[in-house]
Amino acid sequence: MYPRISRIMNLAYLNLVPSLNLNPFSIATLFYEPSTRTRLSFESAMKCLGGEVLTTENAREFSSAAKGETLEDSIRTVEGYSDIIVMRHFESGAARRAAMTANIPVINDGDGPGQHPSQALLDVYTIEREIANMDGIKVALVGDLANGRTVRSLAYLLAKYNDVKIYFVSPEVVKMKEDIEEYLTLKGVEWEESADLKELASKCDVVYQTRIQKEHFGERSDLYEEAHGKYIIDRDVLGVMQKHAIVMHPLPRLDEITVDVDGDPRAAYFRQAKNGLYIRMALLKLLLVGW
Amino acid sequence: MYPRISRIMNLAYLNLVPSLNLNPFSIATLFYEPSTRTRLSFESAMKCLGGEVLTTENAREFSSAAKGETLEDSIRTVEGYSDIIVMRHFESGAARRAAMTANIPVINDGDGPGQHPSQALLDVYTIEREIANMDGIKVALVGDLANGRTVRSLAYLLAKYNDVKIYFVSPEVVKMKEDIEEYLTLKGVEWEESADLKELASKCDVVYQTRIQKEHFGERSDLYEEAHGKYIIDRDVLGVMQKHAIVMHPLPRLDEITVDVDGDPRAAYFRQAKNGLYIRMALLKLLLVGW
Amino acid sequence: MYPRISRIMNLAYLNLVPSLNLNPFSIATLFYEPSTRTRLSFESAMKCLGGEVLTTENAREFSSAAKGETLEDSIRTVEGYSDIIVMRHFESGAARRAAMTANIPVINDGDGPGQHPSQALLDVYTIEREIANMDGIKVALVGDLANGRTVRSLAYLLAKYNDVKIYFVSPEVVKMKEDIEEYLTLKGVEWEESADLKELASKCDVVYQTRIQKEHFGERSDLYEEAHGKYIIDRDVLGVMQKHAIVMHPLPRLDEITVDVDGDPRAAYFRQAKNGLYIRMALLKLLLVGW
Repeated sequence: MYPRISRIMNLAYLNLVPSLNLNPFSIATLFYEPSTRTRLSFESAMKCLGGEVLTTENAREFSSAAKGETLEDSIRTVEGYSDIIVMRHFESGAARRAAMTANIPVINDGDGPGQHPSQALLDVYTIEREIANMDGIKVALVGDLANGRTVRSLAYLLAKYNDVKIYFVSPEVVKMKEDIEEYLTLKGVEWEESADLKELASKCDVVYQTRIQKEHFGERSDLYEEAHGKYIIDRDVLGVMQKHAIVMHPLPRLDEITVDVDGDPRAAYFRQAKNGLYIRMALLKLLLVGW
Repeated sequence: MYPRISRIMNLAYLNLVPSLNLNPFSIATLFYEPSTRTRLSFESAMKCLGGEVLTTENAREFSSAAKGETLEDSIRTVEGYSDIIVMRHFESGAARRAAMTANIPVINDGDGPGQHPSQALLDVYTIEREIANMDGIKVALVGDLANGRTVRSLAYLLAKYNDVKIYFVSPEVVKMKEDIEEYLTLKGVEWEESADLKELASKCDVVYQTRIQKEHFGERSDLYEEAHGKYIIDRDVLGVMQKHAIVMHPLPRLDEITVDVDGDPRAAYFRQAKNGLYIRMALLKLLLVGW
Repeated sequence: MYPRISRIMNLAYLNLVPSLNLNPFSIATLFYEPSTRTRLSFESAMKCLGGEVLTTENAREFSSAAKGETLEDSIRTVEGYSDIIVMRHFESGAARRAAMTANIPVINDGDGPGQHPSQALLDVYTIEREIANMDGIKVALVGDLANGRTVRSLAYLLAKYNDVKIYFVSPEVVKMKEDIEEYLTLKGVEWEESADLKELASKCDVVYQTRIQKEHFGERSDLYEEAHGKYIIDRDVLGVMQKHAIVMHPLPRLDEITVDVDGDPRAAYFRQAKNGLYIRMALLKLLLVGW
């Protein structure tokens, strides 16, 4: 009944034995940007494994960063108190800088508009559990593809499977950036842009919606308003989707998926969020004690 | 000497055996409003029982709520990572909404001017320990009865005992609301309003003082100033109280109880705050493993 | 490889056996000012010893202090939920007030421009490990000696050793205050002021740099700018230092030590930060179970 039960079932799936005990290992979560899912699921993951957590909920204002300390100096300090650093930062490349400085593993939990690799791992895990087979799937990535780090990381990871086809559906102002498109082409992954969400919904296995990120529009709220309402997943879109297909979303969502979609079995986004716990347990186990 | 000792004594009183171990259960504390006592006592309670805690100290600004996520979506996520959600929110009814969404227990730790039921439990526990008998007691509720959620919840709970008499003492602008008065009348509980704090102090078993909540007055700081100094518990008021009677306060207090009262044995408010730990341990045990 | 290994080595040095288990003791960290090192190292220390931690990352804005509760009332509450209070505050003397109120130990983790005694303990521990012998050493304290609480506490502690000589090197506007100078004179410790950092660097065993604290200059940013760049430790200064000498810094640093110094074996500041963990483990053990 309690999530604990389903957790244990998932641990079996992920080849984690419940008796594994990471005590006395500890992780430090350094969050320079707001988060609910990522921080809490990492902390829960470590605690489920018996390890300890040092938390910084608001590192931007309430750590020595507020006094002007460089990220590198903060990392050199925190690595003395923990075994893994789990970091979210508002600047693209920040995690890479931290990893180059640290003598312990650094997990990038989102670096501005850069990447969010642990999210991509849980996304692929969700697709595998929901659809069974990754090879040959058709995935529509929808919404803010320019600033959405999760779709960027997911596109990278999808490129590792066979015969995947990716569709980009986004307002002109937040189109997928060229670096990802070039990477996909290089890897021989078929991709195309489309403006017809409904047509795609009828033929894709996964419709992956994302939030238009208002914070990246600055004073151009007119552009935000225009982009914001353009591609909405509602009962109409759901109506044309295949029976086995799923709707995903990294969350948080505003109104880009209407709440009347939530009750449909193809609405996979809350199951997707729960999968974050298991994937992050697996990731911590991998880094701390090997596979 | 250390509080640990008295904790164990209280556990016996509450029928909690120290060997109880809630590992690997975890609670998530979601605080959308400032708190010291409530959050720390819940977290301490869970840790004393061997369980784990996921903390969000400032959910309003530093969770996905800051990006516009609905409370319901946040709850659907957090329930995947913990076994109980302990929530304080700035809106009346928020806890009820969360509980209707969640598949795990949600504890309301204060919802705006609504209710604060775990505080009422510890208040009754304090009265029982200090006065011995609940039936037939006379209780004066003093201060901000309109916005004070603790007195609202306490009035509800007092209605379950026999022959209780309740007095409301408050500035006109923050009078007890009709919903509570009607509930008491319906349950056959005697209550009356009074403006004579000293007369009541001389005959009541419990004088329960509360803070006038400046934050609810907005720009009408003149009304706040008028309400603020009206009913103060000082050595004069204490002087007329009976030997067995007690002064309670949910804390924090400003100057509505003068500090020269603190040293009197009838000043029960810091013992009351400590009781929060034991009641919350009992509550967590009840929800997670039964009674 | 992981810091855990070196931690265990240091525990032996500090006479802490890894099997020591402080469960079910807990500490509460109350931070009214930003911190990275101090809070995380105390929390890590307690967790390494098997104990529990209650965290308040931002007590100034997100505890009942925001509603006007006095420090004394907050302390009387928190002491009911934990066994030690670890506190940083923005006012000099705040820790003393807390300690006079509390029935449990209070550790001062920095009180405004007052003192920072646990930092001084780790500083002396660092000097002992790096230089071997405390007696007869020459120490240059550099930078913001008026507002820097770490150098104030360190000067006190150095006075307990024999034949120590202390040099003060600071811009006129942030000179060491008279209370410390008088204390050193009273204890028979030789000290003098100097403006020649390079000459001192060539003869001292320890050059202890500190950050000019911009937050204490208010609107006089011209004074800050003047003070700020005056005494910098760079490759030039390092070049004249003796082979066995070390550069220390309580961190965070801005540019008062240039980053090209970091790679030199005499740059001891990140080792110094790591030592905070061991000293704080020793301190917690001492207070909770004796030596």
